Amino acid sequence: MNIISGSELLLLCAVSQCLESPLEMYSFVPSFTRRCSYTEQTGTPLLVRTLWPATSALAALGMLAEPHFTRHAGAWNMLTAAVCVALLGCLQAQELQGHVSVILLGATGDLARKYLWQGLFQLYLEEAGKGHSFRFHGTALTNTKQGQEIIAKVLESLSCPRDTAPGRCAELKAQFQQLSEYRRLKTPEDYLALSKDIEAWVQHEGLQEAGRIFYFSVPPFAYADIARSINSSCRPGPGAWLRVVLEKPFGHDHRSAQQLATELGSFFQEEEMYRVDHYLGKQVVAQILPFRDQNRKALDGLWNRHHVERVEIIMKETVDAEGRTSFYEEYGVIGDVLQNHLTEILMLVAMELPLDISSSEAVLGHKLQAFRALRGLQRGSAVVGQYQAYRGQVRRELQKPDSFHSLTPTFAGILVHIDNLRWEGVPFILMSGKALDERVGYVRILFKDQAYCAQSEKRWVPAQSHCLPQQIIFYIGHGELGGPAVLVSRNLFRPSLPSASWKEVEGQPGLRLFGRPLSDYYAYSPVREQDAYSILISHIFHRRKDSFIAMENLLASWVFWTPLLDSLAHEVPRLYPGGAENGHLLDFEFSGSHVSFSQPPLEQLVPGPDSAPMPSDFQVLGAKYRDSPLISAWPEELIARLAGDIEAAAVRAVRRFGEFHLALSGGSSPVALFQQLAMGHYGFPWAHTHLWLVDERCVPLWDPESNFQGLQAHLLQHVRVPYYNIHPMPVHRRQRLCAEEDQGAQAYAEEISTLVTNSSFDLVLLGMGTDGHTASLFPQSPVGLDGEQLVVLTTSPSSPRRRMSLSLPVINRARQVAVLVMGRMKREIALLVSRVGREPRKWPISGVRPDSGQLVWYMDYDAFLG
Amino acid sequence: MNIISGSELLLLCAVSQCLESPLEMYSFVPSFTRRCSYTEQTGTPLLVRTLWPATSALAALGMLAEPHFTRHAGAWNMLTAAVCVALLGCLQAQELQGHVSVILLGATGDLARKYLWQGLFQLYLEEAGKGHSFRFHGTALTNTKQGQEIIAKVLESLSCPRDTAPGRCAELKAQFQQLSEYRRLKTPEDYLALSKDIEAWVQHEGLQEAGRIFYFSVPPFAYADIARSINSSCRPGPGAWLRVVLEKPFGHDHRSAQQLATELGSFFQEEEMYRVDHYLGKQVVAQILPFRDQNRKALDGLWNRHHVERVEIIMKETVDAEGRTSFYEEYGVIGDVLQNHLTEILMLVAMELPLDISSSEAVLGHKLQAFRALRGLQRGSAVVGQYQAYRGQVRRELQKPDSFHSLTPTFAGILVHIDNLRWEGVPFILMSGKALDERVGYVRILFKDQAYCAQSEKRWVPAQSHCLPQQIIFYIGHGELGGPAVLVSRNLFRPSLPSASWKEVEGQPGLRLFGRPLSDYYAYSPVREQDAYSILISHIFHRRKDSFIAMENLLASWVFWTPLLDSLAHEVPRLYPGGAENGHLLDFEFSGSHVSFSQPPLEQLVPGPDSAPMPSDFQVLGAKYRDSPLISAWPEELIARLAGDIEAAAVRAVRRFGEFHLALSGGSSPVALFQQLAMGHYGFPWAHTHLWLVDERCVPLWDPESNFQGLQAHLLQHVRVPYYNIHPMPVHRRQRLCAEEDQGAQAYAEEISTLVTNSSFDLVLLGMGTDGHTASLFPQSPVGLDGEQLVVLTTSPSSPRRRMSLSLPVINRARQVAVLVMGRMKREIALLVSRVGREPRKWPISGVRPDSGQLVWYMDYDAFLG
Repeated sequence: MNIISGSELLLLCAVSQCLESPLEMYSFVPSFTRRCSYTEQTGTPLLVRTLWPATSALAALGMLAEPHFTRHAGAWNMLTAAVCVALLGCLQAQELQGHVSVILLGATGDLARKYLWQGLFQLYLEEAGKGHSFRFHGTALTNTKQGQEIIAKVLESLSCPRDTAPGRCAELKAQFQQLSEYRRLKTPEDYLALSKDIEAWVQHEGLQEAGRIFYFSVPPFAYADIARSINSSCRPGPGAWLRVVLEKPFGHDHRSAQQLATELGSFFQEEEMYRVDHYLGKQVVAQILPFRDQNRKALDGLWNRHHVERVEIIMKETVDAEGRTSFYEEYGVIGDVLQNHLTEILMLVAMELPLDISSSEAVLGHKLQAFRALRGLQRGSAVVGQYQAYRGQVRRELQKPDSFHSLTPTFAGILVHIDNLRWEGVPFILMSGKALDERVGYVRILFKDQAYCAQSEKRWVPAQSHCLPQQIIFYIGHGELGGPAVLVSRNLFRPSLPSASWKEVEGQPGLRLFGRPLSDYYAYSPVREQDAYSILISHIFHRRKDSFIAMENLLASWVFWTPLLDSLAHEVPRLYPGGAENGHLLDFEFSGSHVSFSQPPLEQLVPGPDSAPMPSDFQVLGAKYRDSPLISAWPEELIARLAGDIEAAAVRAVRRFGEFHLALSGGSSPVALFQQLAMGHYGFPWAHTHLWLVDERCVPLWDPESNFQGLQAHLLQHVRVPYYNIHPMPVHRRQRLCAEEDQGAQAYAEEISTLVTNSSFDLVLLGMGTDGHTASLFPQSPVGLDGEQLVVLTTSPSSPRRRMSLSLPVINRARQVAVLVMGRMKREIALLVSRVGREPRKWPISGVRPDSGQLVWYMDYDAFLG
Repeated sequence: MNIISGSELLLLCAVSQCLESPLEMYSFVPSFTRRCSYTEQTGTPLLVRTLWPATSALAALGMLAEPHFTRHAGAWNMLTAAVCVALLGCLQAQELQGHVSVILLGATGDLARKYLWQGLFQLYLEEAGKGHSFRFHGTALTNTKQGQEIIAKVLESLSCPRDTAPGRCAELKAQFQQLSEYRRLKTPEDYLALSKDIEAWVQHEGLQEAGRIFYFSVPPFAYADIARSINSSCRPGPGAWLRVVLEKPFGHDHRSAQQLATELGSFFQEEEMYRVDHYLGKQVVAQILPFRDQNRKALDGLWNRHHVERVEIIMKETVDAEGRTSFYEEYGVIGDVLQNHLTEILMLVAMELPLDISSSEAVLGHKLQAFRALRGLQRGSAVVGQYQAYRGQVRRELQKPDSFHSLTPTFAGILVHIDNLRWEGVPFILMSGKALDERVGYVRILFKDQAYCAQSEKRWVPAQSHCLPQQIIFYIGHGELGGPAVLVSRNLFRPSLPSASWKEVEGQPGLRLFGRPLSDYYAYSPVREQDAYSILISHIFHRRKDSFIAMENLLASWVFWTPLLDSLAHEVPRLYPGGAENGHLLDFEFSGSHVSFSQPPLEQLVPGPDSAPMPSDFQVLGAKYRDSPLISAWPEELIARLAGDIEAAAVRAVRRFGEFHLALSGGSSPVALFQQLAMGHYGFPWAHTHLWLVDERCVPLWDPESNFQGLQAHLLQHVRVPYYNIHPMPVHRRQRLCAEEDQGAQAYAEEISTLVTNSSFDLVLLGMGTDGHTASLFPQSPVGLDGEQLVVLTTSPSSPRRRMSLSLPVINRARQVAVLVMGRMKREIALLVSRVGREPRKWPISGVRPDSGQLVWYMDYDAFLG
């Protein structure tokens, strides 16, 4: 115990009566000055000064006391009553400093034994003595005796902070053990009993109840029942708070997460729930936002697409899933690591930095904004692998037959793009896997090399040369460095970190990290390494919700990941041997939004769900269809061929006439074409191309259903077509949609007549519907199939019903018409149309027969061969 | 001489009469079969087969001849006459194989002695014997005797190809010396005399004249006189060609180059002129296009912005300009190296690859296309330096006073961008300098690192790992490798090079190039190193114009460089000590289009032409102007401040109303603002911003004078504003400009009323003209200054006179109005307007007084302080 002297002693004694536990006295003074001072910022405890005269009076009596403070200072009670009255007024103006019950559900489980009890002990050490009393109720389904034994063992093995004397440690552990109990918690009655016990205790001790923390360290399937019981039978009384702490997994896709959220939402308020992602408690991860905040000046100009080359968010494990395959089969590496840990880190790196990073609301708001900017993941956004021993482990552990092939990925490399101005074009690489060659976690921000160094490389000085890599690394732990650290290349800037909690890493000669020796970095590690759970338990107690996953955040993450999970459902992961043996097998490359393994697969190690022939097994097939040339191929070749043909037509037209008039249809097949044109055709004379619409739905141009919107998203955003060469159909005039009296069709016809010589488009791209419609000319249409009109308003059998369309006559005036038909759905109509004559009223597509131009059919094998 | 036997001998003898020189006979057969065969491609000389019966008849007589061929086989003449007649018919159908005169002007000069005579000798060795006779006339102003002595010495020192026997070499040199002469060429009479001599010789020898090559190895100032004399007195007769070969410099800016071109154009046809850039004769440079052609398959997907990280085109010299300062002062490093050598290489790398790279027209066409795509250079596109000893050398050599400070750069680093789909965003770095730390030239194409390697770095295998640098290097020469080579990273692809002329480079342990050991590259060097001039002289003879600089090419290059030269005219170059001492002093960095030295200048080593205060010396000044807030600063801060204010307004508006309506003016000041907004404002809610025009000129939207065009080029191209949120003024309807009856103003007013609540823009950006106009509301305007109309047609005092403009009333309805006034030109009106009341008829700007919104003036110091 510290030695306390003079009037300090008096003051301490004076308030001893107000405190619930003797331990609290131990650290009362700092707590008191912190909580009861109006002038906290200046460091002068106003209340202390105000009370000084009163306490001075008592000081005389204080002289009588023995100079060393003892906890049984009951004799003082009477004397200090007056001061207590004054102090209570102050204390009650603050948060109610009452009794806190912590209920650890699943207290005998792995996680609890390994981390949670230790975290609770830590909480007790830090918080007891600051105004609250505590009791810890470990619960499980285990019977009482067995449970008690387990818990006793766990409590015995707790460790004190490094600098605690052994005797003191034993004392503290004894106190903690005294406040901890094991009890079986199974039926609603058990919960009710627990609640009554707590109330009885509080009453017996003359305490106020502050609140209850329920820590769910149980499998998620048990969540609902427990939640129901807590809500119905174990809520604290009015004025006391409830906090429930939930451990992932929170569902295995968006639907299940939403369901769980709804279920839990029927029992708890969102503000009562603390969803743990223990990565957010890791010291380096928790430092990301503060680092960005404290180094704003240096980072302001750097933290964007102009300077960041790439971001890698990596968690590599050497262990495999043995013994956990029942869990792993359900979640895989994406549900286990990427959807939660790596996504949270991604957000911390990518989000706009709030002005006040201590505001949970601001942080959440900015995170959600970043989630919204994420480009959707597609099958091509990921590569997945599975270590070779996994399927054997699954068969053994889950008693599956030898014929069972798990497709669960144990490795995934994901390419994430963020479509906002800050990050557009910057690849974020998320990677995690089991049975890899090393255990390490890190976030690496590599900056662009935007320097040229005029001297020969051998003369470069690492700390000065801007031609050497510039990077910031949040080294989460393990790996060659062996612990958490923040690294900043010396040729970048000298970072600022709080010196009380971060110290410079000592040199380790020979150690190279990310291509450079350690000495090339400013490197900082925590002064005191702390376990993530201890940190998070303290944050729960202090209601620091920014360290937890808000429901909106969770659902946003699942919205992002679920489409990828769906598309990977039947993907055969690449097998890898595990460890250093993996070689370059799992290296992957990206280009645009697409990621693929660097090495082509040598052999099909696992038989796939279907062994369909690959596109490249076939050649483009040239033939005739309805007396016109037919080009048939697998989709990607077909699209490539069509794009090539369009480009050739464009180049020809621009060379001859100075411009190229292209009329495009909407729909899903053209999207692939647009992407192909946008990405691969460098010679396309966009500046001289006019883009027209073949047809349009009567919705505003910004409606997702608008054909124009597809054109804008997949083509216009990527190429430079002058604004005035873009000709959306005027379906939306005077705030009305396709009103006859607004003469939109006439206006478009006039625009065509004015700009397109002879109203003869250079190329018209059409599709074919399963009912034989083309453009928005449907069977039995009263307009557009013949006559003088260039543009007509039509009615579709499906919603949105009203359409604007080019007419058959203007289509047939085109120099070239391409009809793109893709997918199995089109097989029947393709067969039918191949046999009929020119009957546009029945099948408008059969009326497409250019007067003097050329018609070419582009059909994929699915449509053509069925 | 080779031994020739049987009927071959007969055939050779048969045509000996048709050939001008005995040496030609030496290699007649291959030449004959090449030129006289219809079936060249199959390798079967049809003519030979056709003539075979005839020659067989003569073969009997051939038996009488001695078995070894001698050149005095005159006895055969009669016997072979018949065959000759047949052969001549064939030969004359081809190019006339007559006499070629090469006139080397400046034959006693440095370049001639060092390279050109050797090149001519090489030409003789290769070409004599293929149907032409040659004579070489070295000329200069030197008197005959002295000139003859110099030439004799030069001719004596010529070297034969490596594998020539010494005796044979002496023989060949003797032949060449016999055909070479020195003569003084000074007056027009001298030219006439030369011409007559050539004609006399041709006649005397019974030859046809094929053509004359004039090689100008003289200073450019002498070009015009010589050209005039050649044109007037020394052209060959009809049927023979003239080729004049010109050495750079071709002017020192666009004007002088144009002038020189016009001058020379008055004497010669473009097709007669061969402008030498000897870099195009360097083996590795000459290999760039063939390499691209032969490796099309591998490069097709790589040679573009998706894969190329950067391109470096570098020529470093260790020597300085001592002894050449009179030349160097005029041209500097840009005129000496960058405008020509490095620009030509840039074109070879960047141009679209023609299908047929042997077509000079196609190559030129593609080059010019690439020139057109170059983004204009600005002052910020370059860093320049000068080695410290230079000014002393200039003072000494040019007899300048100590007060003379040369600003000529001896070092330049340039950032070039190419605004086409292939190269957009890829930095091309051009750098050259004297007194650097090494002599080396190279083109380095560094590919993007688009891979993630799952294994720890120490396990990467260089030839496989895609995480190690991937590059293609055209190593022009010198440097650590010591000679020309083509290098391709082994982890990229195995290149194809013609194995007859390129061989693999032998390993050099310990040698690292561009960050990797030599063994990481496929490396090829020429089997036989050839001098650039020898190659070019051969190309002149073979009329391979693609190795020379066409006039259009030259002028395009000057169009590109001249603005930079102008803007650098008063730039003080950074001084550097020279050699390895330069340290990191010349390293530079780029960001966007801007390049700057990496190290801030430590001290001003050379006093600048003016020591004006820098923008950062001043603070943004807050004050009042016309009772409204005034923000005054140096231009860049002012723009930054305004951009920040607009962004803040946008964020506020979008938060409150979901959208932001911004009306923008045209002109030059807003351009800087647009660029600032496009580049730096990540939080700008573009997706919810509507862009309107304050005013527009009555020109089509695509006219460069259109305000909308400026908006499109500088803002819309860089941010993602939805198409339907962009509201250009409808000045161009029904192919008419601002016709009253097309009701464009009414339509725009209606669009405003429909979309903008209360027709109250969130922010209107205005400018102020020197006559006090704002928007397109000019003094005394009969419309727009008051009344109900939102949009009006007005008349400007300057062209284009017709305008469309928002009216003062709608401007004054805005929530915020910002008036941006920049530049010294505005000083007077700013002063005047500060004093007048509200008199919109006199000064429309004085009528800007928002009804309930806020007006803020943004003026730079030039406008505000004068």
